[in-house]
Amino acid sequence: MARWEPGARERLVVAAVELFADQGYDATTVTEIAARAGVTKSTLFRHFSDKREILSAGQEALSGRLAEGIADAPPDVSPLDAVAAGLERASEAFGPVNRAIGPQLRAAIASSAELQERDALKRVGLSVAMTDALAARGVAVPVAQLAAEVGVLAFKQGYAAWIEADDDTGFGPYAVAALDTLREASSEL
Amino acid sequence: MARWEPGARERLVVAAVELFADQGYDATTVTEIAARAGVTKSTLFRHFSDKREILSAGQEALSGRLAEGIADAPPDVSPLDAVAAGLERASEAFGPVNRAIGPQLRAAIASSAELQERDALKRVGLSVAMTDALAARGVAVPVAQLAAEVGVLAFKQGYAAWIEADDDTGFGPYAVAALDTLREASSEL
Repeated sequence: MARWEPGARERLVVAAVELFADQGYDATTVTEIAARAGVTKSTLFRHFSDKREILSAGQEALSGRLAEGIADAPPDVSPLDAVAAGLERASEAFGPVNRAIGPQLRAAIASSAELQERDALKRVGLSVAMTDALAARGVAVPVAQLAAEVGVLAFKQGYAAWIEADDDTGFGPYAVAALDTLREASSEL
Repeated sequence: MARWEPGARERLVVAAVELFADQGYDATTVTEIAARAGVTKSTLFRHFSDKREILSAGQEALSGRLAEGIADAPPDVSPLDAVAAGLERASEAFGPVNRAIGPQLRAAIASSAELQERDALKRVGLSVAMTDALAARGVAVPVAQLAAEVGVLAFKQGYAAWIEADDDTGFGPYAVAALDTLREASSEL
């Protein structure tokens, strides 16, 4: 078996999410995930240390893209405009597969306390990444923290709207639309 | 042994937090927690189903107080003023013991991935409770969600400042001061 298997990582994520949604996170074994993805268990363990990590796949890359987009925004834009740039950069990592597995991923999380905790912690990680990136631009810390929370909300709400919609639009416009709604809301606090 | 033991619940929480901070969450058993609190294991299990639950102690009551304070705020106040009323109501549940165990609780959470996840999920629970209470006042959903996130940030930041300070002030003024800082920050988004 070749050590390099194109698409194995993505197939493993899809297989895991399907199994988690079908039969529950706790009941799913790495052996089943590898079998459904059509790879050996040793291939699975080259990509992920355990089944939990399969659901965290891409989180660091996502945080990195959010931070890069914020860092690369023009220096004179507002904190929320910088967050919008972060969301647009992050959206480049969201393809049709992400959209397709969205409803099953949501079902899997809803059915597992452990996955809900993991999801909540992921949210904290995204917030920290955005706060740090905004602070590095010179944004005052309370403003950076608040803008990052708005960014996380926009990310989550944009994602929920995106996976429910039936169109050819990418994730970016959904995330930015959610951010614009929250931007308006911030004037009514 | 009497079934009703005044203070047993609070002693168990303090004992658990001390042990988690000293020797780590994973290494601490319910037997050790009961022994340090000076109660039997069966008393511990009358109060908590497992050691994780000891750290979630009071979370539902806290969410309830936040929601009640928001519901009871005068009808014409702004969403953030309603959140401030929720924080003030919640602060009634925070006494000297909460302040005293704060640094150890923080150390325990910092040392355990499992406790970090639990803490992150607690945060989501507080946010949902405040969002629902604000929406029940007729606040538009995006505004309610945003105000709730500001409330959670104020809660966390106020708590961090409170446990670090050395004065006789209760939790309430710290939480409200943090909220005021974030309120000002919201105009700079």
